Formats: sequence, structure tokens, C-alpha cells
Amino acid sequence: MLPYRLAFWIPCKERSNLADVSIFEPIQQEIVQVEERLNQVINAAPPEMSEQLDHVLRGGKLFRPALTLLAGKLYHGNPDLLIPVAAAVEVLHTATLIHDDVLDNSHFRRGKPTINSLWGNYDAVLLGDYLFAASAHMTAETENVRAMKLHAQALMTVCSGEIKEFLNPFNQSREHYFQRIGDKTASLFSAAAEFGVILSNAPEEAVQSLKEYGYNLGMSFQIVDDILDLTGQKETMGKPVASDLSQGVLTLPTILLLEYPEGRDIKEIFERDKEKGIKLIKERVYEPGIIEECYLIARSYCSQARLALEQLPPSPISSLLASLTDEVIKRAK
Amino acid sequence: MLPYRLAFWIPCKERSNLADVSIFEPIQQEIVQVEERLNQVINAAPPEMSEQLDHVLRGGKLFRPALTLLAGKLYHGNPDLLIPVAAAVEVLHTATLIHDDVLDNSHFRRGKPTINSLWGNYDAVLLGDYLFAASAHMTAETENVRAMKLHAQALMTVCSGEIKEFLNPFNQSREHYFQRIGDKTASLFSAAAEFGVILSNAPEEAVQSLKEYGYNLGMSFQIVDDILDLTGQKETMGKPVASDLSQGVLTLPTILLLEYPEGRDIKEIFERDKEKGIKLIKERVYEPGIIEECYLIARSYCSQARLALEQLPPSPISSLLASLTDEVIKRAK
Repeated sequence: MLPYRLAFWIPCKERSNLADVSIFEPIQQEIVQVEERLNQVINAAPPEMSEQLDHVLRGGKLFRPALTLLAGKLYHGNPDLLIPVAAAVEVLHTATLIHDDVLDNSHFRRGKPTINSLWGNYDAVLLGDYLFAASAHMTAETENVRAMKLHAQALMTVCSGEIKEFLNPFNQSREHYFQRIGDKTASLFSAAAEFGVILSNAPEEAVQSLKEYGYNLGMSFQIVDDILDLTGQKETMGKPVASDLSQGVLTLPTILLLEYPEGRDIKEIFERDKEKGIKLIKERVYEPGIIEECYLIARSYCSQARLALEQLPPSPISSLLASLTDEVIKRAK
Repeated sequence: MLPYRLAFWIPCKERSNLADVSIFEPIQQEIVQVEERLNQVINAAPPEMSEQLDHVLRGGKLFRPALTLLAGKLYHGNPDLLIPVAAAVEVLHTATLIHDDVLDNSHFRRGKPTINSLWGNYDAVLLGDYLFAASAHMTAETENVRAMKLHAQALMTVCSGEIKEFLNPFNQSREHYFQRIGDKTASLFSAAAEFGVILSNAPEEAVQSLKEYGYNLGMSFQIVDDILDLTGQKETMGKPVASDLSQGVLTLPTILLLEYPEGRDIKEIFERDKEKGIKLIKERVYEPGIIEECYLIARSYCSQARLALEQLPPSPISSLLASLTDEVIKRAK
């Protein structure tokens, strides 16, 4: 067997799924330590859970922890504080995904079978709960009260987003959608970046800028994710195509289609017969203009993310964060 | 409609379900403020969740928050710190119950239909997640790092207990049982008491004593709960009788029955045919000696709880805590 470091390590490009820019370059050492922390979570749990933890905590893109580490590096933060919280961000994200998959009854995630499909809903609920706690515990290691509050707030926001999604799965407008992905995805990107700066005792303006950067990057990331959910290949996505729509969740491309005058007939069909409506949406979402408009909106969030970075003193890391916004748009198209 | 305070307030005896000693007497003001904090959790949540939150956060016995407040009062703790954490303990406990009910597919709790039975598993999982976060957030208000770490640790321990229960529901010994209820119940009693003392900057020996007190009280409380689950009335318990056994979970009375030479035949039947075994256990658990032995064990935990209190300077509150151990044994027999 390969020693842990080698076995766990995945080359940067493969991991980030962002072809041209490796956000992991300036934080190579730290990201290996984040992986070691994830491994510790696996080893510290009751032995009954280790197989499941191994299944979910290895092979993630570590995109959010990278944001924490990069934001921290901008202000020369102490890696001993940044690493546990970067790992906590990944664990928190993983916990929300595990519960998400139970709620959506999803069978694939990141190209692997989900916990609920392999071990059932019971294990998946418990594993998610355990990881929420493990993530809070790692954050508490920093003894930084602000970071601990942010951790709790981030989880509350993600849950509210989920609840709104569940309660209004069909009756959705653009505004609902932006609110929902803001809560579900962008809030954790924002928190990931914020963790990095608050742990580095950066000035308050920098905290605000990085929060805004993270939030807008997260919005753009989720919009692209939702586009790819409709247009991507199962192999690239690691989950079935149009999985959201099959669950009855409308995302930006579908919402735009239903807003178009040409989409009005679909809307009527959709309201009468969900199944027929979904079939029609799947066929017609490729009509010219819709996907392009989605990308335009995603780009406008990227511009806002870059604008937020302009408030910071120029540095190689902030340039890397700026170029990352373009990569989010380009990824796996 | 009655104003909130009146509508929410339930007389002490009814609330505590402990007939002779009212643990709420010395902390009447504080417990009302805990209820106000619970009400704030309801009001601060997205409006879609308020009915569900109202359903679960009102009418609890507030036994665990009372432990926090009493332990805090022993060392003249600041109520501004004790109250949010006492509320957080109740919220954390409630969150674990909500997920528990999903996992056990339970329909009644505290004499009311469960969240999963009224709104489905989806809402119940999300509501539990939200309450985990809300509870962490309230604990974070204290800005006390030790309390925040304890909160995360308590949730991790409860989850591990659940996982062990799930993985070994039938293959149980006395030792497994004590370990499991230690993780699932006693750990939170222990944490509830520990919160009170650490927030009051009590000496380290007092922290240890109150932790031990809480743990042993919790063990005794759960053993009595498990006895009542078999011998109690549905009305008193607020849930169906023998609900654990019906779920296939063996508790102390059953484990003792199966250990007895007279129970050996049941054990064999049980191992061949679970359903038949469960039916037999339900009939024979009332055989002389079994329930009595369970009470003896519960009492021995009470003695250990009282012993732990003897390390503290004498005070009316510590006498109240000592007499509480007897009430745990007597309750709703």
C-alpha cells in the first residue's frame, strides 16, 4: 500500500477541475496538511464509521478549503489556525452534501455512489450529524470566537436555503433562485474566504472584501454548476444529467426558459402536468439565447467578485483569486 | 390570545414531571428567560419553519437547561451567559430527538405527533440540522471558547452513541448498553451541568464534580426511562409502550432477562426469530427480580451522583441537586 500522503494526494489539476489556473500552487504544503486533518477525522471516529468517512472525505475538490487558505495567505495568517478551519469548511460542506443526497434521494455524487445509496438513509443522517459536530470541533480548536460564530451562522444559512428550496420547489422566480443559491452555495464560499481573513487579523475592510468576493464567486460557481447539470456529460459531472430538474427543482436556465414568451406554453403545460413539463423543458432549454444569458449572469457575478478584490492591496494571491473567477466560467464546458 | 409569557409558562410540577421536588424553584426567573430565548429561535427562523419550531420547542421539560442554570447558580454565574447556553442545551437536545424520531420512524414524542409524522422525513432532517446550528450559535454568544468546544464535543458523542446503537441493535450486552446510554443521554446531562460551572469560572474540581454528577444522573434517568418504556402507560410516557423493543433496541430490563438462566430459552428463540422473541420478552420482562434489579442499578448511579456532589461546599442548591437523584428514581412509577 502507498503511504498515506502519496495515496491521498491527487495532482492539482485533477483535483481542482479548473484547467488553466492551479489555485493550489501557492498553498501546496497547507493543502496536504488539510488532507491530513481530514484523515484524522476518519481515524478519530468510532471504527464502525471509518469506511463511510473514508468514502466521503477523500477525493473532494477542496475548493472551499483552498479559498480559506488563500484568503489567509493574503494576510500572512498562521497556518496552525488556518489548516484546521480549512479542513472544517470541507467537512461542513461534506455534511451538507450527505444530507442533501438523503433529501433528494440522489444516488451519485462526485462520480461515486452516495452514502444513502450504499448504506441507507439512517447512516447518512447520522454521518452528516457527526460531521457537523466534527467540523464545529475543529473550528473550536482555533479558540477564535468569531470563527466559531461564523461556522454556526454558515450552517444556519445553508439549512435555511435548503428549507426554502423544499418549500418552493416549483413556484420559483429568478429572485427566489438567487436567494436560494445565495444561501445554499454562495454563503459557504463567502464563509470560506471570511474564515481565512478573520483568522489572520486582517483589517475589517479586507474581511468585507473577501466576503463579497467569496459570495459572488459562489453565485457564479453555482450558476455554472446548474448550467452544466443540464448541458454537461454524466462522466464530467459525476452525477446524472438534469438531476435537479428530475427532482422538480428549477434552476436558472429553466427559469429563464419559462420567463421567455416562447416558454409560456411550457409553463402552462408544466403547471398542469409536471412530468410532461419537465420533458419539454429538457428538450427546449437548449434554444438559442438561454444558456448564453445564464453565462452572462454568471459573468456579472464574476465581475462583482473581481471588483471586491480591487479594494485589496495588489498581490500575486489577489491576482490568482481574480483569475479564478474566469476559470469558474470556463470549467468543464 | 394570552400574552407570550403566560401562554408559554407551564407550572413547575407539570413541567418537571418530578412530583415532590421542584428543581425550577431557585431558577424561576431564569427559566422564563430560557423560554424567551426558545421563542426567539422560533421568531428568528425563516417564516416557513415557524410552525414546526413552535411544535418542537414548546412544552419540553427543560430538565437539561435547569441543570445548566442550577450548576451555574452554585458558583454565582452570570445569567447573561447561562441563559443562552441553557437554551442551547435544550435546542441541541431537541435536534437530536428530531433526528432520532426520523431514524426510528417514531410517531409520538412527549405526547405529540413527531415532526416526521406530521411533515415528513425531509423537513425533520432539515429542522434538526437547523437546530444544531442555532444551538451552536447561541453557545457562541457567550464568547466562551471552552463552552463552544464542549457543545461540539457533546454533539459528537451523542452521534457516536446513535451510530453504535444502529450498528449493534441486537448484539447487546450490559456493557454495550451502558456505553450507549452514556453516549446518548448521560453525556448531554453531563455537558448541561458542565456548561453551568465552566461559564461561572468555578474551580476545576467543581467542574469535574458537576460533570460526574450530571453523567451519573443521566445514566439513572435513562435506565428509569427504559424501565418506564416497558412498564409505563402510554399517557404518562407520551409515546407507545415498549417502543424501543418494537424497534429492535434492547434496553436494560430486556438484557437482564436474556442474561438470566430462565431467559436462555428466549435468547435462543430471539436469535432464530426476532419477532417471536420480542413477543416473549414483552410477556416475561415482568418476571420477579428483573425490574427490581434495574432500579437497583439506577440507584447505584444515583449514589455516585450524590457522591460527586459531596466534593462541593454544602449549599441549598447542592442539596436540591442531591434530592433530585431520588426524584429521578421515583418519577411516574
